[in-house]
Amino acid sequence: MKQSKNLIDLIEALTVLPGIGKKSAQRMAYKLLRSNKDKTEHLAAKLINSITEISTCPICGIYLDKEDSQLQNATDKHLCLDEGRDESVVCITESPSDIYVIENNTNYNGDYFSLSGNISPLDGIGPDEIGIDRLRVRLAKGIIKEIILATSTTIEGEATAHYIRELCKDYDIKVSRIAFGVPLNG
Amino acid sequence: MKQSKNLIDLIEALTVLPGIGKKSAQRMAYKLLRSNKDKTEHLAAKLINSITEISTCPICGIYLDKEDSQLQNATDKHLCLDEGRDESVVCITESPSDIYVIENNTNYNGDYFSLSGNISPLDGIGPDEIGIDRLRVRLAKGIIKEIILATSTTIEGEATAHYIRELCKDYDIKVSRIAFGVPLNG
Repeated sequence: MKQSKNLIDLIEALTVLPGIGKKSAQRMAYKLLRSNKDKTEHLAAKLINSITEISTCPICGIYLDKEDSQLQNATDKHLCLDEGRDESVVCITESPSDIYVIENNTNYNGDYFSLSGNISPLDGIGPDEIGIDRLRVRLAKGIIKEIILATSTTIEGEATAHYIRELCKDYDIKVSRIAFGVPLNG
Repeated sequence: MKQSKNLIDLIEALTVLPGIGKKSAQRMAYKLLRSNKDKTEHLAAKLINSITEISTCPICGIYLDKEDSQLQNATDKHLCLDEGRDESVVCITESPSDIYVIENNTNYNGDYFSLSGNISPLDGIGPDEIGIDRLRVRLAKGIIKEIILATSTTIEGEATAHYIRELCKDYDIKVSRIAFGVPLNG
């Protein structure tokens, strides 16, 4: 029986999404074909937008729209942070998405810094690959007095935390690690 | 804290996928932003292709690439069916995706006909809305000698099966219903 090659391609392309295997991708593709074409078009447009329009804040690393981040380059001001937040305390996460988790679930009122992953020597990922070089620039400015490490409890996360702890010894900065195993707001 | 509006839009757009709520959509969006931009672009392109390039076979209703279905209009030949299949037996499903399920899991060697859903008077969906008019045209040609009903066991599926059964009385066609509760190849 003849099948649509475009349909097979769509199913294969959908498996790029996390947690979506071949069966789920098939279900998605059939649903999309049955549903309103405008919605599919909207999704495609937003995917393209995410490539062309989303950038990261050069200071803390969270996702920003490109127009905002360009504005930031011009004024060198920390645009993604609201006024009245404590810039002397910085919470370090291993991805921008972790910032939103902390922001939405705690009363934390300090600044953030997102790495892009953890140190993993076996995979050839060293400190500079995850953005420690940017962190070093920020530490050198002398504004930061306290760092809260929110990397994960995996071996790589602990290694990264250890590396940053050692780094901070040069700058006389208080370093703590967020608690694990206790529910937020618990 | 400032957030990327494009990111929020992307998360909202991803919830159009079946089984994807807000949390899963967030996870998908962050993963896409971290992953290779080429893959995201590829997915967007295939979504657009699915709108512009995929059509359904005017005879049986399965998904076909548009170039194939145009060819079909020209020759009026059943292009989606391989040679050597029995055109006198037709299996009727409620969606094109069910055809692939039957095709991939059984030794069935007849023809197919896909409706677009089931009759549901409460929702204002009558026989012609689901393609019974196309079926009637096919029945009138006199090629079909046997029909196998593969609509689902819901009330709407049973109502549709009953309607087709009544319809076939006019044409002296043998009608059967596929077995339920027995695993395919079981």
